[in-house]
Amino acid sequence: MPWRRIGRVGQVLPAMPYFEVECKGGVQLVRAVVKLEPGPGAELTEVAVPRPGPGQILVKVLATSICGSDLHIYTWNRWAQERIKPPLVLGHECSGRVVELGPGVNMVSVGDLVSAETHVVCGKCYQCRTGNAHICIDTAILGVDRDGSFADYVVIPQENAWVNPPALPPAVASIQEPFGNAVHTVLAGPVAGCSLAVLGCGPIGLASVAIAKACGAARIYATDINPYRLELARAMGADATLQVGQVDAVKGILEETSGHGVDAVLEMSGSTQAVQDALKLVRRGGRVSLLGIPSRPVELDLAEDLVMKGVTFQGIAGRRMYETWYQTRGLLGSGRVNLGPLITHELPLGDFARGMELMASGQCGKVVLYP
Amino acid sequence: MPWRRIGRVGQVLPAMPYFEVECKGGVQLVRAVVKLEPGPGAELTEVAVPRPGPGQILVKVLATSICGSDLHIYTWNRWAQERIKPPLVLGHECSGRVVELGPGVNMVSVGDLVSAETHVVCGKCYQCRTGNAHICIDTAILGVDRDGSFADYVVIPQENAWVNPPALPPAVASIQEPFGNAVHTVLAGPVAGCSLAVLGCGPIGLASVAIAKACGAARIYATDINPYRLELARAMGADATLQVGQVDAVKGILEETSGHGVDAVLEMSGSTQAVQDALKLVRRGGRVSLLGIPSRPVELDLAEDLVMKGVTFQGIAGRRMYETWYQTRGLLGSGRVNLGPLITHELPLGDFARGMELMASGQCGKVVLYP
Amino acid sequence: MPWRRIGRVGQVLPAMPYFEVECKGGVQLVRAVVKLEPGPGAELTEVAVPRPGPGQILVKVLATSICGSDLHIYTWNRWAQERIKPPLVLGHECSGRVVELGPGVNMVSVGDLVSAETHVVCGKCYQCRTGNAHICIDTAILGVDRDGSFADYVVIPQENAWVNPPALPPAVASIQEPFGNAVHTVLAGPVAGCSLAVLGCGPIGLASVAIAKACGAARIYATDINPYRLELARAMGADATLQVGQVDAVKGILEETSGHGVDAVLEMSGSTQAVQDALKLVRRGGRVSLLGIPSRPVELDLAEDLVMKGVTFQGIAGRRMYETWYQTRGLLGSGRVNLGPLITHELPLGDFARGMELMASGQCGKVVLYP
Amino acid sequence: MPWRRIGRVGQVLPAMPYFEVECKGGVQLVRAVVKLEPGPGAELTEVAVPRPGPGQILVKVLATSICGSDLHIYTWNRWAQERIKPPLVLGHECSGRVVELGPGVNMVSVGDLVSAETHVVCGKCYQCRTGNAHICIDTAILGVDRDGSFADYVVIPQENAWVNPPALPPAVASIQEPFGNAVHTVLAGPVAGCSLAVLGCGPIGLASVAIAKACGAARIYATDINPYRLELARAMGADATLQVGQVDAVKGILEETSGHGVDAVLEMSGSTQAVQDALKLVRRGGRVSLLGIPSRPVELDLAEDLVMKGVTFQGIAGRRMYETWYQTRGLLGSGRVNLGPLITHELPLGDFARGMELMASGQCGKVVLYP
Repeated sequence: MPWRRIGRVGQVLPAMPYFEVECKGGVQLVRAVVKLEPGPGAELTEVAVPRPGPGQILVKVLATSICGSDLHIYTWNRWAQERIKPPLVLGHECSGRVVELGPGVNMVSVGDLVSAETHVVCGKCYQCRTGNAHICIDTAILGVDRDGSFADYVVIPQENAWVNPPALPPAVASIQEPFGNAVHTVLAGPVAGCSLAVLGCGPIGLASVAIAKACGAARIYATDINPYRLELARAMGADATLQVGQVDAVKGILEETSGHGVDAVLEMSGSTQAVQDALKLVRRGGRVSLLGIPSRPVELDLAEDLVMKGVTFQGIAGRRMYETWYQTRGLLGSGRVNLGPLITHELPLGDFARGMELMASGQCGKVVLYP
Repeated sequence: MPWRRIGRVGQVLPAMPYFEVECKGGVQLVRAVVKLEPGPGAELTEVAVPRPGPGQILVKVLATSICGSDLHIYTWNRWAQERIKPPLVLGHECSGRVVELGPGVNMVSVGDLVSAETHVVCGKCYQCRTGNAHICIDTAILGVDRDGSFADYVVIPQENAWVNPPALPPAVASIQEPFGNAVHTVLAGPVAGCSLAVLGCGPIGLASVAIAKACGAARIYATDINPYRLELARAMGADATLQVGQVDAVKGILEETSGHGVDAVLEMSGSTQAVQDALKLVRRGGRVSLLGIPSRPVELDLAEDLVMKGVTFQGIAGRRMYETWYQTRGLLGSGRVNLGPLITHELPLGDFARGMELMASGQCGKVVLYP
Repeated sequence: MPWRRIGRVGQVLPAMPYFEVECKGGVQLVRAVVKLEPGPGAELTEVAVPRPGPGQILVKVLATSICGSDLHIYTWNRWAQERIKPPLVLGHECSGRVVELGPGVNMVSVGDLVSAETHVVCGKCYQCRTGNAHICIDTAILGVDRDGSFADYVVIPQENAWVNPPALPPAVASIQEPFGNAVHTVLAGPVAGCSLAVLGCGPIGLASVAIAKACGAARIYATDINPYRLELARAMGADATLQVGQVDAVKGILEETSGHGVDAVLEMSGSTQAVQDALKLVRRGGRVSLLGIPSRPVELDLAEDLVMKGVTFQGIAGRRMYETWYQTRGLLGSGRVNLGPLITHELPLGDFARGMELMASGQCGKVVLYP
Repeated sequence: MPWRRIGRVGQVLPAMPYFEVECKGGVQLVRAVVKLEPGPGAELTEVAVPRPGPGQILVKVLATSICGSDLHIYTWNRWAQERIKPPLVLGHECSGRVVELGPGVNMVSVGDLVSAETHVVCGKCYQCRTGNAHICIDTAILGVDRDGSFADYVVIPQENAWVNPPALPPAVASIQEPFGNAVHTVLAGPVAGCSLAVLGCGPIGLASVAIAKACGAARIYATDINPYRLELARAMGADATLQVGQVDAVKGILEETSGHGVDAVLEMSGSTQAVQDALKLVRRGGRVSLLGIPSRPVELDLAEDLVMKGVTFQGIAGRRMYETWYQTRGLLGSGRVNLGPLITHELPLGDFARGMELMASGQCGKVVLYP
């Protein structure tokens, strides 16, 4: 197997112990999608198979799906420029088989089919010690702050391995991570018998529609600018869809709710306008759960839209560790949520660039790579 | 229309103003199922149509369903002997059309199709003034403490009228009241992605199964001694049923849950044994919601089953007024819960005695009477 | 008693039934502070004593305190120009003795010492029917939308009368209304053992400090631009005060909390800057409760300050009806909160203009008028 | 230093690695209160200083207080006979200085003054992974299931070390553990502005009184059979005390609350009668928090006292790990709770038998031993 441009000879890469500058006899080379230098793009490269340290496990990746943040890193947007330190193996959503245990591992076994919780947390801070590790003050994220899963193998701490039932398809197992974001958001307040609006029908928005439906939501409105995604939203269970840009979504939903608004708004787009709309769309005393990440400050009429209405406006980060994963298991294992329509493209790992193009086009649900 | 045995001439019946001892020309006589004297049984009798007082409405009953407590009053069990003061029109679960408004009524209109919230509350106590009127300290119940709905007409306070969509079938509208008990119980804690055990598959237990299913429960165990009702439970969505007396339900459910127990137990039977089982069946930190009314004191191993396990044990009374009704509307209106299989018998009002027999036999779901 | 400029002869004033254009023999004239025409100011005027309608009571005002919104109406700011329809008796915070009952009143008795809940709600909307009447969709406010309490007498619905223990001083009874805003805000999340920042030390901020202290807050930071009010904050129990403009409050509080921020921020100022600071000051997973009403849109970095941190941002309106009042009774009745230092000025009703000047100067706590 | 009766030569004691059957040259002998054989009593014995394993720390004990369960083990009651496997070092409540770190320890440092969370949990179960480790399915307790703290040294996992501020007196630091039980119980529901009854004024009941007072309880009733402890209850802040056996506590408290009962009952005695009383004493919709451990099954009128009243009945186990500890720090660090009156006796470790006698007599608050 040829060796290509993995760092420079003599370079010290302490944070990524499994990059071997010189490939000696006993080291097995495996494939990984690596950002080698600051700037757009990434490369499929051979790297030495990583080794699990104390409390860590080595996972043979079976499926790894593309997240919007992977695209940001790939295209090298401003956030990526500030956060990412190449060389870095990209990717964080994944499932795979445990093939090796580091010293002291007692929570998983070789052969387990696992998914990765992608937030590697400190375990010491107030949040970690009170059941809120998802907002740990010192979190490292796979494929962002440490090497990720667009690769044949990935190393993760044993705590981050979620053991799946053997029959769960690897692609579904992989997308449990973003699905978990949706579970976290939907279940952050009452759903059963409630009306909801989901703003933004990317994969997490689409999953939210399906989850809300499975959890007894009375009526689900979904909005997006993209008709392809609104069609997916209907397939996932939306009762009504509104194409932003073509119709006035706020007006439409308020009319359908006698002017009162919906019980809950799940903001999944990060659009400034959508965040403002969210506070207009929610009924007095309702909740707005914000998972979308606005790329710039948002101006809000807090007097009218928050104070007078007695609204609760929640920021939602990651997945509750690991309550959300148990809920995810319950929802998927019972067959009550069908993620089938959400997985629109399945590609070999080597076609990651095409996957990135699909993500950029918006003409996709979830794109899964198979190493 | 003949007049039959409605009290004695000259008798003063101040609590039931619409019973007329002498039927003068202008008084319209209507039918009602009345317990005329202390003791078992009841009679279909002609009574004067009741008149709505200030803030009250007159409802023409379209459907009225039989509750277990109606059977207790009919058979004159000990509770009934202590509580009921004949003469009394029986029945409380009902739906009908508003035909007359008393002075000051502004919340409903003539022609509205309404269901009755059957708890008439004081409006003044701590509970009433803090959103917990369902546990008002001074509640009168239709068909128990004041004249009920097994009749052509019933008078209720306007606050107790829940306006239904016009298309809702009267039988379904009637059973919203016990269905609401189930909604209240199921939604008194987390459901989505959770495992639940429903102990007792009378109509409310059966409705609970359907609601839990619609609200994302991962797995629902249902128990009863009656195979007929377990079959209904499967029709309503139970994933597994266990016939008490034939199998060891506690052992069976614990085995299925790796010995840990379920996230929530909904006790719907009132059986002493079932209450004890409930605390054995729930996982550490789970909840037991008790709607069933044990007829005698229950001995509990609180050390092992409550304290050490950190369990929450909730008493559930009635329906939250009116949050539960909004949830009910959301669940039924969205078509997510289908109560069809639950209504097993529909009879004319005059056949109320046969309805009582059915209820006593246990070979029924919900029995609906049509005036 | 002379009659002065109370509307024009022949004018119809249906919304204010107790204004009599012609003062006939039997009508008792009483004093009221009335805004007679659109524009700044108000006048002490004679009006006919109001009469309680069905379900209403007549209260002889014993004390009535000045709120910031009274000042807005007095100075005729933009909000007032849009909302207020003169003629109108100003004022809403009050206590007094019940002197007359309208028809059907059964919740209070003549002679009761009552305070007014100043939100008159519809009783029919979703919020009213689910224990959230404080955010009713159709609320009228005393002294804003209907005649208020800067007068010898005021008429309120019986539901809005909160009966006090006889020994409660009228001034304290009057300020229970704004105190209730503070109770509502402080108790909208965990307090015991928590660190809190109170931004803005007007009377409600000051009360919040005292309440938080009485409810077990571990450490309370208070900020304001006004040193007079910071001194009051220390008297009410603040552990540390920071004068905005002189010190960097965000930096100061973050330093004191090892960079993590406080468990809860209570925003009481309505200042745009303070709202932005609130989201910087709160720890990950903490809450920001917003009672202050920003006069213009606020630009927020929701990505960093809400989503990533998993913060809950709550709008707080009015007082929970009537849970907050029960809590208020518990806190004041137990003597655990002393509002003494908060009442800095007591004036006869005729000196209302001086009271308004004091409010405008900020050199006061609560100003109480005595009719 | 002589060696006394520490097991038998050749005996294998795998669960207690630091018991050395043969005392070789390099092993430091230290003192420990050990139950050597099944049966009543314990002995002050020399043992080898324990060694911290991976992730563990060695703590030099500065203060260690006696819990009721220590007395049960000492007197060898039925529970102890079933649970305890001698030889065992007794004691679990303790504070001390960290003197040695096992491999991989990164959460505490040598020199830290720490208290022990006494529940050593599995870290793998549902409860541990969802922020509820206090009800872990596989918990080992210091001094019960593994060697405890009535000794010069104790080994604990680093996760169980709670780092105190240096100025906290060792005795107070030690009793934070049972104090935490009280914090957990009191804060398991609303307190501010509420009425509470504390049944049982042992040390945890007494601490609960102080905590409730500091957290804004409006009125606190305390009951016990022991006048000495009721006097302590008054010193800790109880508003009213009722001596069970002399007065009818249920009747007394119901009279004081106009027959409605209190908002919350904290059952701290484990007495069967008190548990039954608790459900009588709580108001409709209130909570009963059960920390006391009844020694036998309790018969409850669930129909009247739980279902009809809509009561929440909670089992409280241990301390939330580690939310309760943060709350404890907040309450003690702020000086809002003074535990001074609670510590009635301080003895050298060698006088442990006298401490046990004091505990048995009930004529004490907290008894602290100093090694």
